[in-house]
Amino acid sequence: MHRAAVKRVVRENVFDANDTLAGANREMLDRAGTYTINMMSSPGAGKTALLERTLERLRGKPRVGVLEGDIQTTLDADRLARFHVPLVQVNTDPGFGGECHLDANMVRSGLRELPLDDIEILIIENVGNLVCPAEFRVGEDVRVMVYSVTEGEEKPLKYPLMFRSADLVLVNKVDLLEHLDFDIEQFLGNLDAVNPGVRYVLTSARTGQGVEEWCGWLGQRLEGI
Amino acid sequence: MHRAAVKRVVRENVFDANDTLAGANREMLDRAGTYTINMMSSPGAGKTALLERTLERLRGKPRVGVLEGDIQTTLDADRLARFHVPLVQVNTDPGFGGECHLDANMVRSGLRELPLDDIEILIIENVGNLVCPAEFRVGEDVRVMVYSVTEGEEKPLKYPLMFRSADLVLVNKVDLLEHLDFDIEQFLGNLDAVNPGVRYVLTSARTGQGVEEWCGWLGQRLEGI
Repeated sequence: MHRAAVKRVVRENVFDANDTLAGANREMLDRAGTYTINMMSSPGAGKTALLERTLERLRGKPRVGVLEGDIQTTLDADRLARFHVPLVQVNTDPGFGGECHLDANMVRSGLRELPLDDIEILIIENVGNLVCPAEFRVGEDVRVMVYSVTEGEEKPLKYPLMFRSADLVLVNKVDLLEHLDFDIEQFLGNLDAVNPGVRYVLTSARTGQGVEEWCGWLGQRLEGI
Repeated sequence: MHRAAVKRVVRENVFDANDTLAGANREMLDRAGTYTINMMSSPGAGKTALLERTLERLRGKPRVGVLEGDIQTTLDADRLARFHVPLVQVNTDPGFGGECHLDANMVRSGLRELPLDDIEILIIENVGNLVCPAEFRVGEDVRVMVYSVTEGEEKPLKYPLMFRSADLVLVNKVDLLEHLDFDIEQFLGNLDAVNPGVRYVLTSARTGQGVEEWCGWLGQRLEGI
């Protein structure tokens, strides 16, 4: 009992500080006129590959910047460097296993390195994790989740918070559907059960399917500002 | 700076309490003669599907028990119920987003519900997460990691702690290799870079590839006791 009680207090403090910093990030981004997307998924769902297709397709209209979050390495940022967009890598560091998510303070340190006035849409690629990133607001306008069809139909029920907090779900790797025992109708039913009416796009970073629709959705975000 | 300092102290306390409880779990398991495996992976890498194939193959020799960890639902335990093995589901609960890992205390509550004297090998299926579960010892003898080839070659470099702490890696979903741009030699090189010489088995829960070898490895664990 003692441990649980201590833990609860600590977590509230952490979230409280995080929310304050997330609010400050949001003000900074709003002042710059930067619309910000927190992109989240399991490891290997295809966030970086989709970003590559996205940057290829948009070619600077609108002007996109990227904040890459990873525990270690700059591998993802290296993959995106060829697009010559404003890009910063935030490593969540080898504390012990490394932080399993980006929090508002880590994002803040990255924002300082970006020319926000020149960025219309900032995409924050979070650490690959289906749980913890959803608990931390970082100052984003919306959350976009990438889900790979290789992960199974039932994950919305098992990991509800992230699916529930998503504003858009990119259902990725659909080129593999014919090789999988994945019932997409069942997955979409589970998704709708935890996040009724949430919009989704079927995508494949490999074939390009859905990239046009996703980029169209991105463009519409700017019209509302 | 203040926040970082506070956080470090808190985490040390958490790990300290966890290690004490993990030690107590280990004593309980040793007394019962139960060899214990902490099975970890990303969400959707195929832990449950591999367990299904494993239980089909072993048919009670050795006698296996399962402790299922999930944030919510009993979906995985339901899938395994048909094998009539000792089985307990531990839900890590909707605290906020739910705990993203099993810790020693949660496992302890599950162990109390299991007939340990009748279990030669206990498989603990951890919450799907490539980061946090690796930070928490739960009393296991060994760690077995399941990795899906759909997750990409570079993950050992990006999430080193879990790969480094694994005693065996089941490289799963190899039936999909022909449909993926996955360079398995590169992955194995990355794996060896963070965990030199670690043993691995190429598996497919779908075709059954590698299940024999993995079950042989399991059997060998008991010979050493």
